[in-house]
Amino acid sequence: MKLAVYQFAPRFGEKKENLERVRGAVSGLECDLLVLPELTLTGYQFTSREELAGLAEPVPDGWTCAALSEMAAGLGCHIICGLAEDAGERYFNSAVLVGPGGLVGTYRKAHLFCEEKSWFTPGDSGFNVFDAGDVRVGMIICFDWLFPEAARILTLRGAQVIAHPANLVLPWCQKIALARAWENRVFFVTVNRTGAEQRGTLGRLEFTGQSQVVTPDGEILFRLGEDEEALKVVEFDPADANDKMATEYNDVLGDRRTELYGPLVE
Amino acid sequence: MKLAVYQFAPRFGEKKENLERVRGAVSGLECDLLVLPELTLTGYQFTSREELAGLAEPVPDGWTCAALSEMAAGLGCHIICGLAEDAGERYFNSAVLVGPGGLVGTYRKAHLFCEEKSWFTPGDSGFNVFDAGDVRVGMIICFDWLFPEAARILTLRGAQVIAHPANLVLPWCQKIALARAWENRVFFVTVNRTGAEQRGTLGRLEFTGQSQVVTPDGEILFRLGEDEEALKVVEFDPADANDKMATEYNDVLGDRRTELYGPLVE
Repeated sequence: MKLAVYQFAPRFGEKKENLERVRGAVSGLECDLLVLPELTLTGYQFTSREELAGLAEPVPDGWTCAALSEMAAGLGCHIICGLAEDAGERYFNSAVLVGPGGLVGTYRKAHLFCEEKSWFTPGDSGFNVFDAGDVRVGMIICFDWLFPEAARILTLRGAQVIAHPANLVLPWCQKIALARAWENRVFFVTVNRTGAEQRGTLGRLEFTGQSQVVTPDGEILFRLGEDEEALKVVEFDPADANDKMATEYNDVLGDRRTELYGPLVE
Repeated sequence: MKLAVYQFAPRFGEKKENLERVRGAVSGLECDLLVLPELTLTGYQFTSREELAGLAEPVPDGWTCAALSEMAAGLGCHIICGLAEDAGERYFNSAVLVGPGGLVGTYRKAHLFCEEKSWFTPGDSGFNVFDAGDVRVGMIICFDWLFPEAARILTLRGAQVIAHPANLVLPWCQKIALARAWENRVFFVTVNRTGAEQRGTLGRLEFTGQSQVVTPDGEILFRLGEDEEALKVVEFDPADANDKMATEYNDVLGDRRTELYGPLVE
């Protein structure tokens, strides 16, 4: 498959301008799956629930979903994009998978970071896997990376590719992504934004870029720069993630000792 | 606390000689906890169940446990050491925690690596935490590192230090240990052996050394060389592992969404 990621610095609140940035970047793109960052069109650092309410949209009936579906139809591909979801009285930090035919699946961020807890509701979707064409894809968002449970469940449910839209400000994820890829033997695709935002009480947030794809064998297929704005396309065979053998004797899923794992859900 | 690790190359089957190596190395040592590798006194690569039966010992009534208890009493410390456990009809790749008063706790390796599956029984102890003096310690062994479930459960049960006796031959653990330490905010202590063994059908096994201690903040306090034989002592405050806040808003345990984690135990 051909997977594309677009790393850039959206401008807070300028959804139309940010969409035009994406549209311009992906014009003529040939790929099977395009992954965009967390909260791609709104920007990240909300300062109130009211501000979030003004920028969030229903899924799939909002403007952003319609624009993404149109883009997917035009490019003939699937797109994963982070967005602020208005679910009526509740707002989720979500990611959608859209194809040429419209919405395929939604993921609502389970593990909220910092002040997100003040405006967003913790995701209730659980960790589900969807078909993006011939590829089985799961989604997690940004801080979910820290919780091995998330990527593990997606792997158990058959994800070959874990798409990870992010607005990372800490320096750890890009290193620890190796763990998520290798312990699950999946493709782990982190798509981070660049730039900075200075809004609200948290001070200046500097996003760390370095979007990357790690293979089931722990190979980093590419890692973009910290400040680089770029569309990157990479080709790999998602079926490589079907081989769960870490050694001739060891299946990373089959060797799990679920009868000993009860404390994980207590 | 003062934590010591001893990295060396035991000689297969030579339990007394290997014990003398350890004794000589730790003579006069001042520490609270000494961690030794997996299968410290027997060596690693058994070639038959009969060979294992000839080297394995009951716990706590075997020669190795007695020798370790005597060493712990002499040094006035606790010791964690990997050994081959004879449990009558079943053999476990185990680790024991002994103090000046004798056995404190046993861990039986849950996730067996390669040909270990031919001789050892998968561990049935689960993942338990023990008091080593004032420190709450959990044990995992070698290949367990790949399964985030193991270190996670020990953390949930209050481990401040995860001791990880190992005979590593793959190049991944020492990198991915950063994930285990940071995702759980614990001290993660890998004690690997050096040298090589060429026995049985797997060919030459080269152990990768690089014993290390990673802090809850992701700092590598030290990493020994690949071939270095060394006793290393390091000092840290295990209470640093009590702070589970990754940010002012984020508790790495409290933020877990157990209601979504059911698939982990299915």
